[in-house]
Amino acid sequence: MDALDIARLQGILAQIEHDAAQATDRGQVATYIPELAKIDPAQFAIAVSLPDGTTLTAGDAAVPFSIQSISKVFMLAIALGRLGDQLWQRVGREPSGLAFNSILQLEREKGIPRNPFVNAGAIAVTDAVLAGHQPKDVLGELLRFIRMCAEDDDIHINKSVAASEQATAHRNIALAEFMAAEGNLRNPAALTIGTYVHQCAVEMTCAQLARAGRFLTNAAGAPRLVSPARVRRINALMMMCGHYDGSGEFAYRAGLPGKSGVGGGILAIAPGRASIAVWSPGLNERGNSKLGSAAIETLTRETGWSVFG
Amino acid sequence: MDALDIARLQGILAQIEHDAAQATDRGQVATYIPELAKIDPAQFAIAVSLPDGTTLTAGDAAVPFSIQSISKVFMLAIALGRLGDQLWQRVGREPSGLAFNSILQLEREKGIPRNPFVNAGAIAVTDAVLAGHQPKDVLGELLRFIRMCAEDDDIHINKSVAASEQATAHRNIALAEFMAAEGNLRNPAALTIGTYVHQCAVEMTCAQLARAGRFLTNAAGAPRLVSPARVRRINALMMMCGHYDGSGEFAYRAGLPGKSGVGGGILAIAPGRASIAVWSPGLNERGNSKLGSAAIETLTRETGWSVFG
Amino acid sequence: MDALDIARLQGILAQIEHDAAQATDRGQVATYIPELAKIDPAQFAIAVSLPDGTTLTAGDAAVPFSIQSISKVFMLAIALGRLGDQLWQRVGREPSGLAFNSILQLEREKGIPRNPFVNAGAIAVTDAVLAGHQPKDVLGELLRFIRMCAEDDDIHINKSVAASEQATAHRNIALAEFMAAEGNLRNPAALTIGTYVHQCAVEMTCAQLARAGRFLTNAAGAPRLVSPARVRRINALMMMCGHYDGSGEFAYRAGLPGKSGVGGGILAIAPGRASIAVWSPGLNERGNSKLGSAAIETLTRETGWSVFG
Amino acid sequence: MDALDIARLQGILAQIEHDAAQATDRGQVATYIPELAKIDPAQFAIAVSLPDGTTLTAGDAAVPFSIQSISKVFMLAIALGRLGDQLWQRVGREPSGLAFNSILQLEREKGIPRNPFVNAGAIAVTDAVLAGHQPKDVLGELLRFIRMCAEDDDIHINKSVAASEQATAHRNIALAEFMAAEGNLRNPAALTIGTYVHQCAVEMTCAQLARAGRFLTNAAGAPRLVSPARVRRINALMMMCGHYDGSGEFAYRAGLPGKSGVGGGILAIAPGRASIAVWSPGLNERGNSKLGSAAIETLTRETGWSVFG
Repeated sequence: MDALDIARLQGILAQIEHDAAQATDRGQVATYIPELAKIDPAQFAIAVSLPDGTTLTAGDAAVPFSIQSISKVFMLAIALGRLGDQLWQRVGREPSGLAFNSILQLEREKGIPRNPFVNAGAIAVTDAVLAGHQPKDVLGELLRFIRMCAEDDDIHINKSVAASEQATAHRNIALAEFMAAEGNLRNPAALTIGTYVHQCAVEMTCAQLARAGRFLTNAAGAPRLVSPARVRRINALMMMCGHYDGSGEFAYRAGLPGKSGVGGGILAIAPGRASIAVWSPGLNERGNSKLGSAAIETLTRETGWSVFG
Repeated sequence: MDALDIARLQGILAQIEHDAAQATDRGQVATYIPELAKIDPAQFAIAVSLPDGTTLTAGDAAVPFSIQSISKVFMLAIALGRLGDQLWQRVGREPSGLAFNSILQLEREKGIPRNPFVNAGAIAVTDAVLAGHQPKDVLGELLRFIRMCAEDDDIHINKSVAASEQATAHRNIALAEFMAAEGNLRNPAALTIGTYVHQCAVEMTCAQLARAGRFLTNAAGAPRLVSPARVRRINALMMMCGHYDGSGEFAYRAGLPGKSGVGGGILAIAPGRASIAVWSPGLNERGNSKLGSAAIETLTRETGWSVFG
Repeated sequence: MDALDIARLQGILAQIEHDAAQATDRGQVATYIPELAKIDPAQFAIAVSLPDGTTLTAGDAAVPFSIQSISKVFMLAIALGRLGDQLWQRVGREPSGLAFNSILQLEREKGIPRNPFVNAGAIAVTDAVLAGHQPKDVLGELLRFIRMCAEDDDIHINKSVAASEQATAHRNIALAEFMAAEGNLRNPAALTIGTYVHQCAVEMTCAQLARAGRFLTNAAGAPRLVSPARVRRINALMMMCGHYDGSGEFAYRAGLPGKSGVGGGILAIAPGRASIAVWSPGLNERGNSKLGSAAIETLTRETGWSVFG
Repeated sequence: MDALDIARLQGILAQIEHDAAQATDRGQVATYIPELAKIDPAQFAIAVSLPDGTTLTAGDAAVPFSIQSISKVFMLAIALGRLGDQLWQRVGREPSGLAFNSILQLEREKGIPRNPFVNAGAIAVTDAVLAGHQPKDVLGELLRFIRMCAEDDDIHINKSVAASEQATAHRNIALAEFMAAEGNLRNPAALTIGTYVHQCAVEMTCAQLARAGRFLTNAAGAPRLVSPARVRRINALMMMCGHYDGSGEFAYRAGLPGKSGVGGGILAIAPGRASIAVWSPGLNERGNSKLGSAAIETLTRETGWSVFG
């Protein structure tokens, strides 16, 4: 990307940030995790990281936020590295058509979650990585991996958020115990969920998150931490399932693979081009960042980065 | 694409056709439509049409087959042209997580089908196009549109197949009547289903289908029959919902938007590059062409056409 | 029952009618069948028929009303007489846990309705009786049977109600077509549903209905039109499934087998003692007569007729 | 009941025991609780206790067995005594149409179980009784109540069975945690489930169980431990929900309110007449004692005790 293109892209980000600042309906901050409920909904950030690491930002891109379910992408990459295709014996690869925390489907399909990005599926992935290890080792590995992706060591787990999430983790424990009943859990539910809530409490800035996603662009010059074939598969899963039962809407509007978190962050990938992170704490009715989704829609429209032509 | 690339692509198609010919497990031909149950499962074809209309083929690419649900893509394009975003009041844009002919979801969501590619959704789309018109006019419009897309007038409806499908259309009628009960049908169910079964009975060769799909590539030189923004949206819907509850698997393996039909055909789009058609009558357990799916997976792996990097 | 008991029972009915007249929240008249939506909700009737035919009444017990789903009891008796236990190959005997017109369960259980009193099950029963006969013959047989039960020939089908119901029968047609798709319908859906809507349009007064139910008491002196063992089974089905997903509540409060209709009628049986009919057009949120349910609860409390001790 | 009737009844029990001894298909012993999987399936017992305590038996009526879910009836009586109708804010009164351990319905209905006899509902009942008390106090109260019902102090909890059940309680924990997530659990899941598995591990002989059920007959001479109105309601709930999704079948065949346990026991009540207990460890496909269900069907046929006339 030459200097002119970069200037134009910077202009697009500035405009997106400007529009977001005007927005009156910013969605609802998630309330079921008390620590997250305290976040100021007026914040907004966007960051685009090019394969070479050049990172353009607008808004509060230096404010750390809780990446929550976006952590599922990094843990999935670790799980695939460790288990390869064996992982797919424990979790499927299809959209669920249901809410992110639904237990219905687990009953219908004998404890095999539909995909690694609904809560049940992510718990199964974490449980698979955990097998035979201590939670702190797994969390250490996750942090090392994310820091390597971002080329930045200043990325941490927020223990207050983890504690807050642990205290209201009943539904996630129910998912884990249900999988245990069906033979699809390898560790005590308390251990797996304890690891899971800490994983979700990783904090990053928008700039860090955008940089961390570059390995998923498969672009020349980007860090190569995972094989190109596996990158494509992770992107496919993000496209199909990354926004829960709003995944269709995100694909329709934004045209990129992406993964949202209940903290209001979204990581989206423009294959071969850039890694994109947005953050706005207010969520839409599907639990995805309201202004964040709109921002990526605008960005792909203005850049022509949609994978759909 | 230069001559060398074309020669290489032709080689890939030849290899795919060769591999398909060796396959022993070819899936099961659909039996619920008696006319389709008669089809010889040993047939296989693949065709790739470049934006300028250059079309490479291998196998039985000149044999007409019943495109069945692939017709839903063309009817959707017509419906969007006529109704624009109003169409989305009657049908959603999310994967369903259920079989193509499920009625469960209609009950849960008050008669609004999850997306335009499950049967209920396609029936709603056809019903929307039909409103105020005669079935023969709508079917005439569909044929004219497909012929224009393919730049080929030798495309027809197979009346035996339509009659065969009509005779076993109970479940589709149930879907239509259920939508009628919920206020989401504008015509008598018999009229809408009559139109629908004829639409599904359109016959094309693989070469024709590949050519017909070029308008969805948004590539320079391809026919521009629909706005680029709408093309992207149709592609997004094909990616998310084009293979029913096997859509995740197709995205994961093939990495392209595509739409399958119970006749064993698949139309897939490599945005900016090519339109691809395959045909092999045997289906996998999700109702998608078994060898056809594998063929597109091989093609994208060999060409690097996956949209996911 | 001696004269004193009869006088006391008459007093109970008078008190029930008096209380009903004071009620301000009378429920909602069903609106989905236009002809029924016109009924004056202020009407109320109760009738108790003793085995010997002595019938005590209070309120509008001489006003004919549409018995609707109560007709399912009589058609079931005819079906069991004709097919015996073979009927149970086509319909189950369990409560559904779902609304009266739900189609969900049909999909889950391959077209076999849960019981003969949800709409799908009643349609299967009517279809079974219809096989090889004309609708008018089946409807004639039904009327003859009901008249014989009531020992009263002045019982008819209201053709305006049938026509009104036919015009809004989409959901019932969907149920029938879905069963056809699963191989559980013997006649064209139009024929079966045509018969079904006429069956539901039988009109009777409360006094007639109470008299017609005596054969279900298995009491000495009551008409014996069905074997005692079969009577017990029909009563069991009414207890378990007679009030749709309000059956548990009716059993809990009233303690008798009963069958409700959307016209606001309920037929309840006190085995060995009496047949009871109530009518009040306003329905509760489960689709059962609101004041009618309360009236039978009061009656069993005052008489000690609960089957539960 | 006079001496002649008693002799006749004794003859019926002997015949039932004789028939059971001949049975070759005895169902399957539950395997998911390891301690129960060891039970000899050849055992069979039946006991009928008359209101005055006279108890007739046949077979292994002096062998203690694990009453399992039959304990739910006694705990429900205690809960209603303590909380009255407030209990119904936490659990419904309708059949579920689903398996005893289903979690589907909890998700659909916001954590309110359908009835007190499915596992989720029974856990909610135990949780309600537990509130503010220690598990050992609640279990002590349960044992005292059952012993008072049976007029027999030799009734205990089998700690090996409880431990065995605790070790495989994942699904019950999932149900409890799911209810906790929906605000319908008052104690830590571990505490409630710990109490629940001990409650299920109560052991009684068939003779003891039959005697313990007399308070549910509302018969003159039987122990009056619960008001007659409440007895009727408990019986109604047993009729509607006592055999999970085989409740309709039990009502149809046996015609009595009853509650089954996965240990192979059934308690059935003939209101005004007798309390009946059977035990045969092999279960049918709905999880209810196979020979036990048949035995009660024969008993009611021979005695005319069906509540349905």
